[in-house]
Amino acid sequence: MKIPFTKMHGLGNSYIFINVFDYAIKEEYLHDLAIAVADKDFGIGSDGLILIHPTDIADVGMRIFNNDGSEGKNCGNGLRCVAKFAYENNLVKKKQFTIETKAGNVVAEVHGDRTLINEVTVNMGKPHLLRETIPMEGAKGETVIAEPFTIGTEHLAVTTVSMGNPHAVFFVDEINEAPLTTLGPLIEKDARFPEGVNVEFIEKVNDKEIHFRVWERGSGVTQACGTGACASVVASVLNEKLAKGQEITVHLAGGDLYITWDEEDIVWMRGKAETTIEGIFYWEQNN
Amino acid sequence: MKIPFTKMHGLGNSYIFINVFDYAIKEEYLHDLAIAVADKDFGIGSDGLILIHPTDIADVGMRIFNNDGSEGKNCGNGLRCVAKFAYENNLVKKKQFTIETKAGNVVAEVHGDRTLINEVTVNMGKPHLLRETIPMEGAKGETVIAEPFTIGTEHLAVTTVSMGNPHAVFFVDEINEAPLTTLGPLIEKDARFPEGVNVEFIEKVNDKEIHFRVWERGSGVTQACGTGACASVVASVLNEKLAKGQEITVHLAGGDLYITWDEEDIVWMRGKAETTIEGIFYWEQNN
Repeated sequence: MKIPFTKMHGLGNSYIFINVFDYAIKEEYLHDLAIAVADKDFGIGSDGLILIHPTDIADVGMRIFNNDGSEGKNCGNGLRCVAKFAYENNLVKKKQFTIETKAGNVVAEVHGDRTLINEVTVNMGKPHLLRETIPMEGAKGETVIAEPFTIGTEHLAVTTVSMGNPHAVFFVDEINEAPLTTLGPLIEKDARFPEGVNVEFIEKVNDKEIHFRVWERGSGVTQACGTGACASVVASVLNEKLAKGQEITVHLAGGDLYITWDEEDIVWMRGKAETTIEGIFYWEQNN
Repeated sequence: MKIPFTKMHGLGNSYIFINVFDYAIKEEYLHDLAIAVADKDFGIGSDGLILIHPTDIADVGMRIFNNDGSEGKNCGNGLRCVAKFAYENNLVKKKQFTIETKAGNVVAEVHGDRTLINEVTVNMGKPHLLRETIPMEGAKGETVIAEPFTIGTEHLAVTTVSMGNPHAVFFVDEINEAPLTTLGPLIEKDARFPEGVNVEFIEKVNDKEIHFRVWERGSGVTQACGTGACASVVASVLNEKLAKGQEITVHLAGGDLYITWDEEDIVWMRGKAETTIEGIFYWEQNN
């Protein structure tokens, strides 16, 4: 099969995009196709596959498939790319529009013109702060802010935030000395987090900037995690290290994101989306 | 920059090909471009970059760059792709032609027609068998065939072959029980091989087929190694397990190669080359 595609990334989180408005793919092929496009050697090379499709319940729809062929719900870095793609390809008329995802509709706004969108702002929704919504073991009905948290021989303080997925945020003095690969995997699978947890370490630079490193649940160290960046800004406000309503620059390993937790409790994420390839994928099934 | 490219692979050894007949790239960009095209997330995803260029000393020329930006000499899997590309793109007229490489000119023959070449045969030259040409420590002027070779507590028998690069070949009864990851790295760096060595384990299936697994010098376990497949057939003939002049099917992890060590001492390698992408790479330098 000859499959027209675009490859894009958001802070190094890369996906193959197929425009289903123009080119339909049979449902039964999607699992294998997602694995194929992720393969650097026999395929293209990416973190997964995103289909951009017509829908009646939003301006444009997206479906995301992981590199193991399973269908996912959402991805902040992928969403920015979807918005750029939809606007540049005239699939939407206005600069602010809605995207259907398996996790619900999302509002996105593109910055630039039809020929080149470089940045996108996405409404990431409201954070969930109660312990049982993370979920984390312990008394229900309370937030978890700078709570003492002992792991092995280390005594830390944890702040937890759900952005639809669970985050445990820890503040450090020096981001380069954060115990990412030592404590990250232990905290991820700690029994206090029955569904596991994404682990973020944060260094405050000043009132408008933080450094960020992440150990992602199921993936380990990654270059960028959009929901983690959001959770980190929320956790910083809860710990009175940053002010609510301010746009905060989050320095991730893969680049910067600009996060605002506004007075209506919505978290906005602004960041880059970049096109790396436009091409045809020659897919040999049964390879 | 918008760079037109083709991605191809030979048994999963993948390269980005740029046709320098049509599209020149400044010499000072090549190092960074090779790194960029190899990057799965910010770039394309490949084992390296191959330029196909005009030359006066052969029908077509190739230059290969590794994924660290350094320039290499040659690659059997890449050569098959170069031959397919050159013929399908009308850069050569005949089906048998010469390719200039940094390791000298190579004769290639394509199988198929202008619209689709699926297989390519490459002249891999004559093997070098004397101990000092591998190089391996010990008395000069002799071949190394089933020589006792103790490594740790294991007593093996080694046969050595140079195909321009050094190979140590060991025969096993069950390919899936070959000590690839345990002994491979020890043998690679053993002091008896002053320049290191590629380590191959072979199981004879019948008079026309062998199973093959490789621990590549500098790379570890890989899916395919063209020179290793050649060396393994030569070693099998030297050990009187296979007949000279026969085409042998070598089953590698990434697919099959067909190797003949002919009566004039030339080793011929036939195998697939496949196109996976044709596209435009949007390269942001200083990324």
